[in-house]
Amino acid sequence: MSEFDLIRDYFQWSNPPSSVGLGVGDDAAILRVPAGCDLAVSVDTFNAGIHFPPETPPHAVGYKALAVNLSDLAAMGAEPAWFTLAVSLPEANREWIAEFVRGIQELAQQHGIFLVGGDTTRGALSITIQVMGFVRGQALLRSGARHGDLVCVSGTLGDAAAGLAIVQQRLVMLTEAATHCIGRLNYPTSRNALVEILRGHAHACMDVSDGLLADLGHILKASGVGAKLYHQAVPLSAALLQLPLEQRLLFALTGGDDYELLFTLTPESFGQVKEAAAQRGILLTAIGEIDENLTDLRLDYELLNQKRGYDHFSAN
Amino acid sequence: MSEFDLIRDYFQWSNPPSSVGLGVGDDAAILRVPAGCDLAVSVDTFNAGIHFPPETPPHAVGYKALAVNLSDLAAMGAEPAWFTLAVSLPEANREWIAEFVRGIQELAQQHGIFLVGGDTTRGALSITIQVMGFVRGQALLRSGARHGDLVCVSGTLGDAAAGLAIVQQRLVMLTEAATHCIGRLNYPTSRNALVEILRGHAHACMDVSDGLLADLGHILKASGVGAKLYHQAVPLSAALLQLPLEQRLLFALTGGDDYELLFTLTPESFGQVKEAAAQRGILLTAIGEIDENLTDLRLDYELLNQKRGYDHFSAN
Repeated sequence: MSEFDLIRDYFQWSNPPSSVGLGVGDDAAILRVPAGCDLAVSVDTFNAGIHFPPETPPHAVGYKALAVNLSDLAAMGAEPAWFTLAVSLPEANREWIAEFVRGIQELAQQHGIFLVGGDTTRGALSITIQVMGFVRGQALLRSGARHGDLVCVSGTLGDAAAGLAIVQQRLVMLTEAATHCIGRLNYPTSRNALVEILRGHAHACMDVSDGLLADLGHILKASGVGAKLYHQAVPLSAALLQLPLEQRLLFALTGGDDYELLFTLTPESFGQVKEAAAQRGILLTAIGEIDENLTDLRLDYELLNQKRGYDHFSAN
Repeated sequence: MSEFDLIRDYFQWSNPPSSVGLGVGDDAAILRVPAGCDLAVSVDTFNAGIHFPPETPPHAVGYKALAVNLSDLAAMGAEPAWFTLAVSLPEANREWIAEFVRGIQELAQQHGIFLVGGDTTRGALSITIQVMGFVRGQALLRSGARHGDLVCVSGTLGDAAAGLAIVQQRLVMLTEAATHCIGRLNYPTSRNALVEILRGHAHACMDVSDGLLADLGHILKASGVGAKLYHQAVPLSAALLQLPLEQRLLFALTGGDDYELLFTLTPESFGQVKEAAAQRGILLTAIGEIDENLTDLRLDYELLNQKRGYDHFSAN
């Protein structure tokens, strides 16, 4: 039995959806996109020592590898459908694989995304997942932000970056706060539940993976607009509020890996969308606005200790 | 400029086809499957030191990484449409990347397959390509072989395995023959040109990647039938014919990496299909037949020195 057979066995939890004509086992899967839908496709590689500390529990590695890809589908306004999984492993460690697959499978089941293909090979620990999803109506692009839009974000920012600092022993926090931040690092919540809510409202959207300032910069550049950002409006968890102002802002504005959605919409839409999200238990916060007098990003705070991801933008 | 920007620049050679709503650059690509078509999806990882010797020229690495994936589409009867490319590289070596991408791009252009997404990361040299293609009509599965079918193969077998043996200094051949075999190892020809020709004729199909005996075993198992195979009928190149009988059969029957198509069809179909393939310059050869009196694979020759890929099958 190959490792991929082992992986496949963990995905026998349900019958294939009607969109899967033929799943794993032949030279390719045969799939069907529902009439009237476009297909969203995204791929992400996840390497030990680069994207996650080598000592990360395998359950978290699997969970997060799929979560970051699900987040890309949410950011496009797409509904999860299928994924492929390519894994390179230095050795046949069945316990590691079992936990890793359990992490993926748990999240896959939750989102109804179906494994349709994959490959397992010898090599340095590396996971490449490609997700495919259905777009009903318009996709949410980065390029649609308009003058007068509010800039909004889901959840809280900076927790994952603080979690990484704790894991790397660059930061010490009280146990409860540390547990929260490490949990956000290892088990990010992809915001697929917002897709339905944002449809017809959001003008531009992406997920926060490189840090708020860098990612908002991408939206502004793609949309050809500028924006004001209010540092006091940026939503922070109780854990992050324990840190000094400068440090928590550094995590929240330049830290990556939060996988919250960053989007723009009219002030009129915001109230309605915020209320609908609250009913799903998701906090939405307006943190700035697209400003026709600006050509880039202006933040009302000067970060002293600027970090990677922030280099491209001026902050006055 | 990131490495992926560099890679993307090499793919600016043509306008996107109408099936690509949005290509590289947002959180996901937005794609359209033509009405009435299914989608075939396959993924393969290609690791240095495992799937290719580390000293393989980067142009060949790129070419072959895409070729083996295109071969999976051919084996399913699918027409190439899009691909994603995930590359882990130990260091930013722009010369290596340029040659690698040139190898991919050359083949992509030839087959009209369009890059729609990707990822470049730090890590041990590893390439994961996912190909997506359109299936017009019925896909070619492994499971359709019927009693009375001929077992057929395209091209010649064993060249790639001989090429690997030469590169690994386990085999010495005359220069011209060695060049031929190494060329077949590094630059396999995916048989996408056969898809149109086999449509409506082939009952079962796959590509020869693990070796003829192992791969025919997969077809027989999936189809629930047995077959006779005639060792003298197996098509060999002039280069392979220079080797002693036992050695050339070992390469041709158990060597992988040839990426020829292995398929079954009725004797009535064979003449017509063979003629159409010959007009495209592709040799087709009948090498055996599905036999209702057998339950597995029977070869009319006993290989003394059995190798990986052959373990699962009895040869009497």
